[in-house]
Amino acid sequence: MTQDGAGVTLVLGGARSGKSRYAEALCREAGGERVYVATAEVRDEEMRERVARHKAERAGDGWRTIEEAMDLSAVLIREAAAHRVLLVDCLTLWLTNHLLAGSSIEKEIDALVEAVSVQPGRLVLVANEVGFGIVPENRLARQFRDHAGRLNQRIAASADEVTLVVAGLPVTVKGR
Amino acid sequence: MTQDGAGVTLVLGGARSGKSRYAEALCREAGGERVYVATAEVRDEEMRERVARHKAERAGDGWRTIEEAMDLSAVLIREAAAHRVLLVDCLTLWLTNHLLAGSSIEKEIDALVEAVSVQPGRLVLVANEVGFGIVPENRLARQFRDHAGRLNQRIAASADEVTLVVAGLPVTVKGR
Amino acid sequence: MTQDGAGVTLVLGGARSGKSRYAEALCREAGGERVYVATAEVRDEEMRERVARHKAERAGDGWRTIEEAMDLSAVLIREAAAHRVLLVDCLTLWLTNHLLAGSSIEKEIDALVEAVSVQPGRLVLVANEVGFGIVPENRLARQFRDHAGRLNQRIAASADEVTLVVAGLPVTVKGR
Repeated sequence: MTQDGAGVTLVLGGARSGKSRYAEALCREAGGERVYVATAEVRDEEMRERVARHKAERAGDGWRTIEEAMDLSAVLIREAAAHRVLLVDCLTLWLTNHLLAGSSIEKEIDALVEAVSVQPGRLVLVANEVGFGIVPENRLARQFRDHAGRLNQRIAASADEVTLVVAGLPVTVKGR
Repeated sequence: MTQDGAGVTLVLGGARSGKSRYAEALCREAGGERVYVATAEVRDEEMRERVARHKAERAGDGWRTIEEAMDLSAVLIREAAAHRVLLVDCLTLWLTNHLLAGSSIEKEIDALVEAVSVQPGRLVLVANEVGFGIVPENRLARQFRDHAGRLNQRIAASADEVTLVVAGLPVTVKGR
Repeated sequence: MTQDGAGVTLVLGGARSGKSRYAEALCREAGGERVYVATAEVRDEEMRERVARHKAERAGDGWRTIEEAMDLSAVLIREAAAHRVLLVDCLTLWLTNHLLAGSSIEKEIDALVEAVSVQPGRLVLVANEVGFGIVPENRLARQFRDHAGRLNQRIAASADEVTLVVAGLPVTVKGR
């Protein structure tokens, strides 16, 4: 991170590890206007309600929410240029959306890594660590796992800090 | 931990990670009378034999064993008050027992966290880290994973030390 | 590790964690003739082509490749005696091969641990960490997971260094 607080942090964690809460706390520490980039694709009414509720809760806590399931790179470039603190929650859902849409995953990851590298602000990215179980029997699950692992490696390589959240607590993998 | 060796340690680990063995070694270091709280529910004859064998082995090694599948809080309060060194193996089985019994998981976790916080002795709690694989297809497995993650976060927040055991070796997550 | 660069490093990681790439970099740092011990059992034409391609790529990068799916101990003793730098990729596939062959896993692990302990060279062993997901429904998967966990514990106990690779980045578990 630079002295003015810019820099990229990748927050990795398992399911219900507390990674999102930890990432939110990092953004609050950074100060300034906070933008929450939600990548969850709304697929039904139940989810629409949950997303709306979370958005309202975050608004009360000082966040502006942007919903963007696919074109993360454009959002990062545009919002970071406005000197905001950005939280992306999460990269793994974004990857899932692109897999379901039949996108070229390599191209999408290349574009995302480029956007992460050039954006000038404070950026916190949340992603799931999904590779520590046994090999899934389902072929699509294996492919997803491979893509998710490669995505995490690429982002980690260009991040200033990488933190693994275990039971709500941060373990430093890279950085300060 | 206080100077007299009191304090709570959460030992997290995957399957066959050596977490129980590590937790037992921590308790031996603490000295004093050691109580092993086994949370496994005995469901058949094969298991009854295995549990009896383990109990006999531990007795030879200086442990007293208490079998308590459900009401951990009462055991913690009662035994810790007697200034013993307690090992609970493990919280994840205790959670499973309550899920199968249809208990209110939130209430049970609240009561356990309270008991962990107020007990005055040396307490080592073992739990499984289960959230680092891909999303399970089975809905009950997903719910279990969510509950287990939240339980680990809650206990970790009130523990003095949290250790992740990897291939039998401790990685400090919180504490000394 | 000794001053002359000998010593055993276990590199653990999840699927697509970058563990192999990290292990290769460790071997390059060690200098000297590098031998890559590939434990993948070739089962079909597609795999034969992939294995041949990887072997050619590594040859261009200065590696000699030995394919040995089963008798790792003999390879370790023979090659290490010739003062080479050895990379075994990976122990988990080797374990799978023995499980499929119906070998006595305990005996095989004992022999491997013995070979790892007595070989005098620079040895880097790659293995999968597979125990951090929920309990698999498949009984064979559960057994595999148990064996893999025990194997990792045994090797970790006799290694000089153990590193967990997360998103391509090393987390020290044991050693320097």
